[in-house]
Amino acid sequence: MSRELAAAAGREQAVTDKVLASFAGTADSRLREVMLSLVRHLHAFARDVRLSEQEWETAIEFLTRAGHITDDRRQEFILLSDVLGLSMLTVAINEPAEPGATEATVFGPFYVDDAPEVPLGGDVARGAVGTPCYVSGQVRSVDGTPIGGALLHVWGADDDGFYDVQYSADHSAGRGWLRVAPDGTYRFWTVLPTPYPIPHDGPVGDLLTAAGRGPMRPAHLHFKVVSPDHRTLITHIFVAGDPYLQDDAVFGVKDSLVVAAEHHRAGPAPDGSHPRESWASMHFDLVLVSDEDR
Amino acid sequence: MSRELAAAAGREQAVTDKVLASFAGTADSRLREVMLSLVRHLHAFARDVRLSEQEWETAIEFLTRAGHITDDRRQEFILLSDVLGLSMLTVAINEPAEPGATEATVFGPFYVDDAPEVPLGGDVARGAVGTPCYVSGQVRSVDGTPIGGALLHVWGADDDGFYDVQYSADHSAGRGWLRVAPDGTYRFWTVLPTPYPIPHDGPVGDLLTAAGRGPMRPAHLHFKVVSPDHRTLITHIFVAGDPYLQDDAVFGVKDSLVVAAEHHRAGPAPDGSHPRESWASMHFDLVLVSDEDR
Ligand SMILES: [Fe+2]
Ligand SMILES: [Fe+2]
Repeated sequence: MSRELAAAAGREQAVTDKVLASFAGTADSRLREVMLSLVRHLHAFARDVRLSEQEWETAIEFLTRAGHITDDRRQEFILLSDVLGLSMLTVAINEPAEPGATEATVFGPFYVDDAPEVPLGGDVARGAVGTPCYVSGQVRSVDGTPIGGALLHVWGADDDGFYDVQYSADHSAGRGWLRVAPDGTYRFWTVLPTPYPIPHDGPVGDLLTAAGRGPMRPAHLHFKVVSPDHRTLITHIFVAGDPYLQDDAVFGVKDSLVVAAEHHRAGPAPDGSHPRESWASMHFDLVLVSDEDR
Repeated sequence: MSRELAAAAGREQAVTDKVLASFAGTADSRLREVMLSLVRHLHAFARDVRLSEQEWETAIEFLTRAGHITDDRRQEFILLSDVLGLSMLTVAINEPAEPGATEATVFGPFYVDDAPEVPLGGDVARGAVGTPCYVSGQVRSVDGTPIGGALLHVWGADDDGFYDVQYSADHSAGRGWLRVAPDGTYRFWTVLPTPYPIPHDGPVGDLLTAAGRGPMRPAHLHFKVVSPDHRTLITHIFVAGDPYLQDDAVFGVKDSLVVAAEHHRAGPAPDGSHPRESWASMHFDLVLVSDEDR
């Protein structure tokens, strides 16, 4: 290393050392650990790429735009985390290594807190347009015990690939929660998922474009399953055969979550109803890790 | 490594590998280099600290708050970069290793584009309250050549430690730009800088509090010096003896930028004026790197 380069490296290390020292007194030991690691990795990144001042400004502008496009119903920072794979990495880091449990995947930016309750067997679509889809299965523990009464939150896009909140802030469709039966079984109607692009009219979309990456996600339905004494499961089911299964913009696909959608002509459905149009069905069991197993 | 840990590490690496592959086709080779490094370091951070889902959520909320508090006159992302030392590290990375040149420091969040022109020797304070301070010096090249006509942008806080824009979006005081004399010399009146806290009523302030860090910056005056054929210099002068010189919230202090403020009783000043109150003076030469030297 030339003397000049060594001097530069010394100047840079001096900055990093000062910043690390400033966090050394953080009272909360976990926050201290996280911040020290964040500073080390952030600084290592800037040094590795020899970050220019113009690039630093571009990053500030990117984050500013992301902040300004984010509101109650649009979450650009989650999208950013998703397309950088940080969301799926966080899932992987926290995934219980419990054989037989349903695998988790990304939460995504479209969950909302105030979705309505839908009765068991009822219609979650609530006006969302698409092919009717009957979804059923059982919620149980890894040891096979049915988890009666678990709360099952469901949300999905419509046939045009949009979530309700993408139409307007107070539109609610294609989402709801229900309580599973005492024997752990669940069933509901919704619309068959279709592939959709993540919102790409913001800075994250620009990043995808610059990287030559597409914004598409393979068709999926979101689940959040909550039951006392069990680890909350956040996952999707994906539709088998989808053209984007190998190319999910947010890296969310896991083979175990890919489910066949069966297609049916108009006629009797398992719940005794008689859809007047063709319909689909998907079956998937949701297997939770109990707190004891963790 | 146990089989379980190895499996977990493999799951995590698989996510990182997928994300890296997704950026491999980025057409702009510099963007590709930056994004691949960013993904590597971001993922290494999350894995090193075993980032929890709750912590991930906290990070999303932090960035969202930062975005929402940011507007035309408040820049929380620059503050964040500043308190994490990324701003000063970027300065260090890009600093020309040119002996004799004035050292650079952080830009800070308070520069505004539309500051007014002030005549050479005029008053930049323009109503900002504080001890009058006469600032003078020379702008020259490393080789000693005076840089006549260079543009000198100046901005600083008032005696209460506030920048104009912190009072209201359209308030303008304590800032301006002037053209230095043909012999490179400059002079202007402003108010003597005092220490001030960076804005700490937002998420960055909460982070500082949690880390047991103070928000104070030692007294300083900002300079941006622009001249054709020279590298733009962004720097401060700090006031010698300031109690926060060792404890700058944004790590901006460099010994070479610390300047003595001389204090004077009411009476004749070097420009022939007769301040009717006690006043101060500071003298500092600004030495630029010419494009040829880079
Ligand atoms: Fe989704
Ligand atoms: Fe400042």
